[in-house]
Amino acid sequence: MRIGVLTSGGDCPGLNAVIRGAVLKGTRIHDQEFIGIREGWRGVVEGLTMPLDRHSVRGLGKQGGTILGTSRTNPFEGPLGGPENIKGTMSRLGIDALIAIGGEGTLAAAKRLTDAGLKIVGVPKTIDNDLEATDYSFGFDTAVEIATEAIDRLRTTADSHQRCMVVEVMGRHVGWIALHAGMAAGAHAILIPEQPQSIDQIAAWAVSVRDRGRAPVIVVSEGFTLNTMETPHSEKGLDAFNRPRLGGISEIIAPEIERMTGIESRATVLGHIQRGGVPSAYDRVLATRLGMAAIDSVMAGEWGTMVALRGTDLVNVPFADALSGLKQVPQARYDEAAILFG
Amino acid sequence: MRIGVLTSGGDCPGLNAVIRGAVLKGTRIHDQEFIGIREGWRGVVEGLTMPLDRHSVRGLGKQGGTILGTSRTNPFEGPLGGPENIKGTMSRLGIDALIAIGGEGTLAAAKRLTDAGLKIVGVPKTIDNDLEATDYSFGFDTAVEIATEAIDRLRTTADSHQRCMVVEVMGRHVGWIALHAGMAAGAHAILIPEQPQSIDQIAAWAVSVRDRGRAPVIVVSEGFTLNTMETPHSEKGLDAFNRPRLGGISEIIAPEIERMTGIESRATVLGHIQRGGVPSAYDRVLATRLGMAAIDSVMAGEWGTMVALRGTDLVNVPFADALSGLKQVPQARYDEAAILFG
Amino acid sequence: MRIGVLTSGGDCPGLNAVIRGAVLKGTRIHDQEFIGIREGWRGVVEGLTMPLDRHSVRGLGKQGGTILGTSRTNPFEGPLGGPENIKGTMSRLGIDALIAIGGEGTLAAAKRLTDAGLKIVGVPKTIDNDLEATDYSFGFDTAVEIATEAIDRLRTTADSHQRCMVVEVMGRHVGWIALHAGMAAGAHAILIPEQPQSIDQIAAWAVSVRDRGRAPVIVVSEGFTLNTMETPHSEKGLDAFNRPRLGGISEIIAPEIERMTGIESRATVLGHIQRGGVPSAYDRVLATRLGMAAIDSVMAGEWGTMVALRGTDLVNVPFADALSGLKQVPQARYDEAAILFG
Amino acid sequence: MRIGVLTSGGDCPGLNAVIRGAVLKGTRIHDQEFIGIREGWRGVVEGLTMPLDRHSVRGLGKQGGTILGTSRTNPFEGPLGGPENIKGTMSRLGIDALIAIGGEGTLAAAKRLTDAGLKIVGVPKTIDNDLEATDYSFGFDTAVEIATEAIDRLRTTADSHQRCMVVEVMGRHVGWIALHAGMAAGAHAILIPEQPQSIDQIAAWAVSVRDRGRAPVIVVSEGFTLNTMETPHSEKGLDAFNRPRLGGISEIIAPEIERMTGIESRATVLGHIQRGGVPSAYDRVLATRLGMAAIDSVMAGEWGTMVALRGTDLVNVPFADALSGLKQVPQARYDEAAILFG
Repeated sequence: MRIGVLTSGGDCPGLNAVIRGAVLKGTRIHDQEFIGIREGWRGVVEGLTMPLDRHSVRGLGKQGGTILGTSRTNPFEGPLGGPENIKGTMSRLGIDALIAIGGEGTLAAAKRLTDAGLKIVGVPKTIDNDLEATDYSFGFDTAVEIATEAIDRLRTTADSHQRCMVVEVMGRHVGWIALHAGMAAGAHAILIPEQPQSIDQIAAWAVSVRDRGRAPVIVVSEGFTLNTMETPHSEKGLDAFNRPRLGGISEIIAPEIERMTGIESRATVLGHIQRGGVPSAYDRVLATRLGMAAIDSVMAGEWGTMVALRGTDLVNVPFADALSGLKQVPQARYDEAAILFG
Repeated sequence: MRIGVLTSGGDCPGLNAVIRGAVLKGTRIHDQEFIGIREGWRGVVEGLTMPLDRHSVRGLGKQGGTILGTSRTNPFEGPLGGPENIKGTMSRLGIDALIAIGGEGTLAAAKRLTDAGLKIVGVPKTIDNDLEATDYSFGFDTAVEIATEAIDRLRTTADSHQRCMVVEVMGRHVGWIALHAGMAAGAHAILIPEQPQSIDQIAAWAVSVRDRGRAPVIVVSEGFTLNTMETPHSEKGLDAFNRPRLGGISEIIAPEIERMTGIESRATVLGHIQRGGVPSAYDRVLATRLGMAAIDSVMAGEWGTMVALRGTDLVNVPFADALSGLKQVPQARYDEAAILFG
Repeated sequence: MRIGVLTSGGDCPGLNAVIRGAVLKGTRIHDQEFIGIREGWRGVVEGLTMPLDRHSVRGLGKQGGTILGTSRTNPFEGPLGGPENIKGTMSRLGIDALIAIGGEGTLAAAKRLTDAGLKIVGVPKTIDNDLEATDYSFGFDTAVEIATEAIDRLRTTADSHQRCMVVEVMGRHVGWIALHAGMAAGAHAILIPEQPQSIDQIAAWAVSVRDRGRAPVIVVSEGFTLNTMETPHSEKGLDAFNRPRLGGISEIIAPEIERMTGIESRATVLGHIQRGGVPSAYDRVLATRLGMAAIDSVMAGEWGTMVALRGTDLVNVPFADALSGLKQVPQARYDEAAILFG
Repeated sequence: MRIGVLTSGGDCPGLNAVIRGAVLKGTRIHDQEFIGIREGWRGVVEGLTMPLDRHSVRGLGKQGGTILGTSRTNPFEGPLGGPENIKGTMSRLGIDALIAIGGEGTLAAAKRLTDAGLKIVGVPKTIDNDLEATDYSFGFDTAVEIATEAIDRLRTTADSHQRCMVVEVMGRHVGWIALHAGMAAGAHAILIPEQPQSIDQIAAWAVSVRDRGRAPVIVVSEGFTLNTMETPHSEKGLDAFNRPRLGGISEIIAPEIERMTGIESRATVLGHIQRGGVPSAYDRVLATRLGMAAIDSVMAGEWGTMVALRGTDLVNVPFADALSGLKQVPQARYDEAAILFG
């Protein structure tokens, strides 16, 4: 067989390790041939490829990003999109099956294409760790580690200046990165999308910390929203100009804390540094294993499934199950973390 | 209640985070009092204590080692040892219950003491990840990360000099650290206690790597033993002097590879750097959660059990189950890694 | 003698190592007594102190921030400020001399107070490395290292998505951090306050990189200003609302590059993570040596001078010389770096 | 011109950055052509080359080791060695000039070859920082950083177990790595080749630390020798077998401290991890600048000189001056560090 591999959506530490794992096992054990699909679904639609053999994956285990490139292209759009066109393109390129490495959108597209008869297996990629069907996804551990180190650094500045630091981490829909990095770094409050809080509550935590003689450190997911009857002062200012919110939620919260409590407050948006660079050892092992399991799925013809982590085992999960909903932080995990707030 | 906390056996990144988690939840939620037992079971036997309140655990989440100190004392030995003496000492110190953080030996002792009527809950500590009852134990992730970074560094030297690097990591009885660090760093062979290999096989892997124009990197657990009919040349030399083996197994293997293949070879024993210092974010979260779960076990009177990780959940496990045997690397995990050998 | 130590201005990795170096040499060799002045000049003015002996500096060499706290108080303001009041306060506290660790403002204040008869020696602190009288100042190396690691990470994302990354680092008046981190991380353009560039030039560099098939990485000092006849499009938008610029210069430049070149562009403001946390080994050594040299200056009665690095030696420099002007990036150093642009 | 580049002797973080700096400036500014010489002088003697253009140096700034390979071949030995043969080989390969990156031996060979009429400029490479003519050499900062992080980790184990840790770092003839890493990590004794100490003095330092309730951390250069009338007990044991010393000096000192003081003691030999892997930002900047300066020297025809760091400037130094002697740790620097001993 000739197997195409693609990476789609935002990049994530471990993508290259997945590719390497699949190619090395596929060539060494299963004696298959690979071809790289460039820039995610765009490459499938437009037929953009690159060679992908065991030499091209040398040293990839520890390399961040994806050598295949990525995009957010929707394979059902455009004149070349859709199942029938894609079947034609794959046939023309001599590609028998696809390994699609991506997040919810990618897997949803893969499901529709598999339903239409294409041979696809998936590997879940979500730095936010928001896919229900897998205990952890690669990249998440690296992101938590980077965020934790950053918060450790910010804390010394907070203490020296008696400032409140509001640190914004990734997590559009779920708060896993904030939860783990916040617990690891000993944050005094963790604000996540699943648990709206009022600015009054946040200010109360900050005051409680200050009153113990310490400098508050607050970790907030980018997708957190304030639970409030009243628009905070800073957002009002922006609304007055009737324009989209600039910057992140931390840049709303920090000045509000300062205004309400008198504690000098600073926002830091960690941003893209959380998703690039050398993966942690944990993510390299997980990603390598997932890549190997994906090629096994191909050999077994398990089309329409993705590989996933359960405990310490890798399992196969139908796309449908994988797409059943966001994996949110459960109440019990938030309550556990909240013991350390304030 | 007044709860004593002790750490026993070799130190491990995350010990302090366990202590912090237990003390913060115990004081904030359960309103209990704590006392630190110094130097493991020696402190229990000799009545060595230190204050342990929420102020003493400030900032401990990221601090390596254990503020309580540790030792390898057997609580059943000596004039002050044994259940009855210990009951007396605990009574004198006003200690109602113990949280014992330690490995197999510690938990075995805790079991015997619980059987004799003492109130003890356990937290599993094994940097080697060799306890059957828990998916992972804190400290393991940090050790793997440190070993992986070291192997990454050694690889560039190997490549520049066309040398074979034999890197010895922790793992007396099981090969988990070697397995994970070796996979993460892309080692060409991983040698673990569970899978004896002949020096001929190891040399063959090295030659295969060299013949592809690359420099072999071999990761070996300290507890690995050669499976061989014939004593290797280097060990013969040592035997001739009828004295215990000096240095680690890597220092036997490296010269033997060089003698057999002509590839210049070097041994590096990573040693204690794997077990000290700042824990990874993964270990800080796991250790904090285990500490919190341990105090819950105390409040629930679950004497004779330890807290453990199953998937993403924490569970309670009777000491007896926890002590049922070493958690070895399963054949399937070794075979998976071996795909990348040579 | 009883010697007061204060840290003033923004925090900086190595402050605690300076304190430790001064206290350990001062107590062990010179047999002097120390007292900590809290929160910079505010502590001098208001008489805020804390004990400072060899026990209080244990383990401080690697601790970020400053145990003394810091502020931006001007010692000449307020009812308790000014030389005569301060003399009275110092006399009341039994303080014979001061070691003032701070930047340009701190040293200028120290000069005025010394001119008025107080006994002060200085230690230069500037994370931006902008003091003329010293080759390097502690904290700078750590900041460069953190910025470099961040840019390394951002580059993999840039490459995977074919994006332009604009990374904003510290440097209000001078571009040393951008220059060094940019060279270390192989940036395609480095934008510093000393060298205004037009948005056209910046866009041209980005296009040149894109045309070679690569993703542009641009490092910019926070104090960089565009050299342009025409206000860029993004800044126009803000000016229209007649309000202060939000965010950093990178947030002006990135959208402008995207608008002009069609290359998707992202801004990242590294911010406070550059100034906190564990100092690099280089900074720990430099800071420790400066602290030791400062107490030698005190013993020698070299009031009105600060210690400074020249080559590998520490020297004494009168405050006046130290304040003669900002140390800018020389043209030759910028030209050297610019060889790698585009 | 066609310029050959070679790296010789032990590898060192920053070698690739030197190569990249020379090639990028040489191609972009001076419009010269490069060729890579493989495996140091062996490549010169045997005519082993590889292509070296701007594409081959992409991303090399942060890559450890040397893409050119290295060896310890002496270019004056063998049937193809010596100036006349080498002239012939260079002429045959169309090489006009050489940039030789290496240590004392390499530069001495380069001097002899230059004296015989070859066109060579040098770049000093010594991870031990032992070349008199340059303030610092690339690789040293990285080695110190790695050693410091390792000692930080070992300290927590020392404290938890009340053990003495003896950490052996690189430094065959001079103690710079031990001096800097020891100061940075707050070691209780630093043992360097320039300053022999008796085992009695070392044991006395350990006891003094233990008596203050702390765990001794001792850093020792691999080239340190005991200053003693009497052979230590452990070395006696080895002598009894009339065989070369196994392991490093730390493995002599640690058991001796334990025997003399009763303090449990452990040796750790850091070894090759100090010389591989990603260079620090400091070393990347220094190495890049040295590479650029080397190609300038070639263009200026400054044969028989090497580039060197003085303060913050790069200068040209005749090989003869560069080879005038080892740069030892001066007495004043050792005394400064020794203030913190015991």
